[in-house]
Amino acid sequence: MNKKTKVNAAILIIGNEILSGRTQDTNTSTLAIWLNSIGVKVEEVRVIPDIEQTIIDTLNFFRSTYNYVFTTGGIGPTHDDITAQSVSKTFGIKYEIHKEAFKILESYYKPGEFNEGRQKMSWMPENANLIYNPTSGAPGFSVENVFCLPGVPSILKSMLGGISHKLTGGTPILSHTINLNTVESEIAKSLSDVQKNNTEVDIGSYPFFRAGKLGVSIVLRSDDKTKLDICNSQILNFVKDKKIEIVQNY
Amino acid sequence: MNKKTKVNAAILIIGNEILSGRTQDTNTSTLAIWLNSIGVKVEEVRVIPDIEQTIIDTLNFFRSTYNYVFTTGGIGPTHDDITAQSVSKTFGIKYEIHKEAFKILESYYKPGEFNEGRQKMSWMPENANLIYNPTSGAPGFSVENVFCLPGVPSILKSMLGGISHKLTGGTPILSHTINLNTVESEIAKSLSDVQKNNTEVDIGSYPFFRAGKLGVSIVLRSDDKTKLDICNSQILNFVKDKKIEIVQNY
Repeated sequence: MNKKTKVNAAILIIGNEILSGRTQDTNTSTLAIWLNSIGVKVEEVRVIPDIEQTIIDTLNFFRSTYNYVFTTGGIGPTHDDITAQSVSKTFGIKYEIHKEAFKILESYYKPGEFNEGRQKMSWMPENANLIYNPTSGAPGFSVENVFCLPGVPSILKSMLGGISHKLTGGTPILSHTINLNTVESEIAKSLSDVQKNNTEVDIGSYPFFRAGKLGVSIVLRSDDKTKLDICNSQILNFVKDKKIEIVQNY
Repeated sequence: MNKKTKVNAAILIIGNEILSGRTQDTNTSTLAIWLNSIGVKVEEVRVIPDIEQTIIDTLNFFRSTYNYVFTTGGIGPTHDDITAQSVSKTFGIKYEIHKEAFKILESYYKPGEFNEGRQKMSWMPENANLIYNPTSGAPGFSVENVFCLPGVPSILKSMLGGISHKLTGGTPILSHTINLNTVESEIAKSLSDVQKNNTEVDIGSYPFFRAGKLGVSIVLRSDDKTKLDICNSQILNFVKDKKIEIVQNY
């Protein structure tokens, strides 16, 4: 396997409303599933408050550690939206009106409605690449390997299609799930042995409660289809020996 | 205001299943709301993979930076459950069978069913304090300021009542919400002015779409009731001037 085909990312959720528990973050799973599908593995997520220095420090660590960085939140019109100016400071580049973003916003709003708050959304790091927003006009942007998206989940989702071509993914990560009618402790030893024999497959074990029944989801993940299949067959072997019912295998 | 009454916490979500997007984390908001209610402010959340060194490094940073640290996930019976041994290494203390946890588990299961996998759940850092689990037997534990909880949301929730008395909270953080029938850009300038005049109140602005209508939630947070009220009245003043409809104010 070519090591160079591994591509990773980190997600930075900017927002006091997530830390206070007021808002439930759903952007992490949206971004992770989408990134997986194009061969990019999310290796870390951080949720931090709307504090400029914290944003700058985290961005500097992330952008030098991971191939791609995605931020969510803080690009709206209000005083607590400080992502764009923080990214400018992170890269040491000018924070100014982005002409194309200004035009997009100007034509999006009715004459007379393009007020100061809305104009703020056109302020970005100099020469930022725009990420177009088919839902509500205001674009996101990217600078080098840092992609800045809004916090509102439906708007964020609608913008991902526009940046897929800007990312170079690695070998896609494949996954295989086996749902069993058992409990984790029944299979823990056997599963551990399979993991030892299949070090290039990541084996996860997750208990579930569904329709009043206890079960276990075994999730296999690897970028190598053959290794995934070998691992799967070894699990099915001990499952058969133990006479455990397979609920799903996909 | 006494600075000493500020108490903070960080949350460490341990689990590949969150990073892959397979599972939607809900424990962050559960923990944050509960901690807020006892005067503890969550200042950072990190989601990291099931990698021992990453867990140790993050725990060492968190436990020296924040008053309390909460981990979720990785305390079950399978090979990918490595939180307890990682916490032992973090503190440099022995990883061994916890006698009380062993007894609890032994009596929880039917005779003959307390197998190797289940026994693994009694392995903990030496002299760890148990966090009792009214839902499924297997206890969590704490060492100094680090509290280790399971990843399954319903089980985690059921264990919080048992640790509230172990935490010393600060002045509770009060919040006030004003929902307006407007858009963010209409109030951005006025809200920014109010924030400048009320530096000890954290003002958040969050757009919402509800029943086909656009709106803005303004959330005020402070540990000082008087300052919160002053800030609220200043906002209501400009809302009145602008003839904006108040949907809710609570």
